[in-house]
Amino acid sequence: MSIQVIFLGTAASIPTVSRALPSVVVKRKNEILMFDCGEGVQRQMIKARVGFHRKMKIFTTHMHGDHVLGLPGLLQTMSLLDRTQRLEVYGPVGIRAFIESIQLTVQFVLTFPIEIYEIENEGVVCEEREYHVQAARTIHMIPSLAYALIEKPRLGRFNPEKAKALGVPEGPLWSRLQHGEKVKTPTGKVVKPEEVVSAPRPGIKIAYSGDTRPTRSLARLAENADLLIHESTLGDEMLKRAQEDARMLAIIKIHSTPSQAAEIARKAKVKRLILTHLSSRYKSAERLLEQARKIFPNVDVAEDFMKIELSLGDA
Amino acid sequence: MSIQVIFLGTAASIPTVSRALPSVVVKRKNEILMFDCGEGVQRQMIKARVGFHRKMKIFTTHMHGDHVLGLPGLLQTMSLLDRTQRLEVYGPVGIRAFIESIQLTVQFVLTFPIEIYEIENEGVVCEEREYHVQAARTIHMIPSLAYALIEKPRLGRFNPEKAKALGVPEGPLWSRLQHGEKVKTPTGKVVKPEEVVSAPRPGIKIAYSGDTRPTRSLARLAENADLLIHESTLGDEMLKRAQEDARMLAIIKIHSTPSQAAEIARKAKVKRLILTHLSSRYKSAERLLEQARKIFPNVDVAEDFMKIELSLGDA
Repeated sequence: MSIQVIFLGTAASIPTVSRALPSVVVKRKNEILMFDCGEGVQRQMIKARVGFHRKMKIFTTHMHGDHVLGLPGLLQTMSLLDRTQRLEVYGPVGIRAFIESIQLTVQFVLTFPIEIYEIENEGVVCEEREYHVQAARTIHMIPSLAYALIEKPRLGRFNPEKAKALGVPEGPLWSRLQHGEKVKTPTGKVVKPEEVVSAPRPGIKIAYSGDTRPTRSLARLAENADLLIHESTLGDEMLKRAQEDARMLAIIKIHSTPSQAAEIARKAKVKRLILTHLSSRYKSAERLLEQARKIFPNVDVAEDFMKIELSLGDA
Repeated sequence: MSIQVIFLGTAASIPTVSRALPSVVVKRKNEILMFDCGEGVQRQMIKARVGFHRKMKIFTTHMHGDHVLGLPGLLQTMSLLDRTQRLEVYGPVGIRAFIESIQLTVQFVLTFPIEIYEIENEGVVCEEREYHVQAARTIHMIPSLAYALIEKPRLGRFNPEKAKALGVPEGPLWSRLQHGEKVKTPTGKVVKPEEVVSAPRPGIKIAYSGDTRPTRSLARLAENADLLIHESTLGDEMLKRAQEDARMLAIIKIHSTPSQAAEIARKAKVKRLILTHLSSRYKSAERLLEQARKIFPNVDVAEDFMKIELSLGDA
């Protein structure tokens, strides 16, 4: 099994010709987990062939328009397409009022139930059988969250040859061994799980920063992640400019530069870093990439429709 | 002077890979008049190089999401770019509650004043020195409007050679003649305006249907227009299918087919018809175009970023 990450929008605040507003989709088995939902996301989903009928959870990081304004159109299009499956929406306090006010002021009839979860505390916000999603507070202009998708450890690999050699016949005993129980063979011999099953394999972990200045809470949340998707709104060169430019200072104080994002990746010991949420001033991302690479080599800059496959082999 | 019409979005309800949600922009002198404001319009404006700082009026036809959900992101981006100039927004009752609820639930600070006009009656909704915009009720699922931009007649062409030959010296007398007054030359001879000025030239007229079934009110509004932009959601072939398909019937009853739009164009004696608001089921518009052309030959189907120049020479 593998997880696919698709970048639907990689711009900050204002879209560009080549970058749509922020949204990242994680395809896991038959489910879609979306992180942020910028304006235009429904069309990006159509272009990336992400369906509208799947099991889906949307995690919004904060209530700035560029991160949530894709939601109303997405809800409308899902309804026009007769979605019936429940949709879960997670976000900071305020996400419920936003969705409800749209339903009151723009004319459309929902064909499916929405469950809205306003997150007031850090920690696990959604618990599923095979994974959970954890939220951490970040530091931005308004209350903001980062998220991590954390798969639970998977069962170790079962070795059928070894089991047979030890006299365990194929059938229910194999399953009990794989689930960590000792079993007795027909000849009365006790076989322990560790004799035929490898150690449990950690699942895949993906962390997403949302908009934030560098913060230890995110480094902790992202610890040992296979992939950290971190905002990098402005380049390091703007730190200097901000000393003389009050407006630039105000922006850079609530965002991260490539070096700052790379430093978080290094501290968190993640395996791979992708920078996203780029200011429209950058026509090319080359300079941002260089700045980050000095501190954390396994880094790339996201582009719209970039896809990443993560499988346990990577872990 | 000419007027430029740019189609920013030509899809109906759900965007496609090649068609964004509805919006048409009319560039007239230093001003932008936008008709409908579908999700993603700000990015379409960037792609079409329509600026965010100009004098601008937005006319929304009805409160369905695909026609208004581009507004919040547009307001946010204009503010991020420090627009200071007033923005006028016209629409049916409900447009004010929508804009105000977005301002309450999504975090952004407007840097410019918005004037919202909720249209309750047909007729002139906006009067400028050189043009007015007129609204007419149309027939859709919810209250809906069509609009016409109607330029006032322009002064006739002044013939300076003739004026000189008749003994009128260059100066204020010329201006008085051009504005329709008789004047006396220094030698006491009376010169009438029609001797030196051609007849006033009618201005350009553009009508925009919004979403509607064929309606006489629109044919009246569009009378003698240089350009009628008419919705054409579904092809004529769907009229037959709707007889057995209740859902198709419900949709087609509140929209127009190419033949129906062409019939309105013919009745209104417009000079040119452009079909837009195409259902996502049509990969090619060829069939729709053929259906309309049988009834009204000067017809085209809009594509995103299609531009049309209208000048008085066309009138």
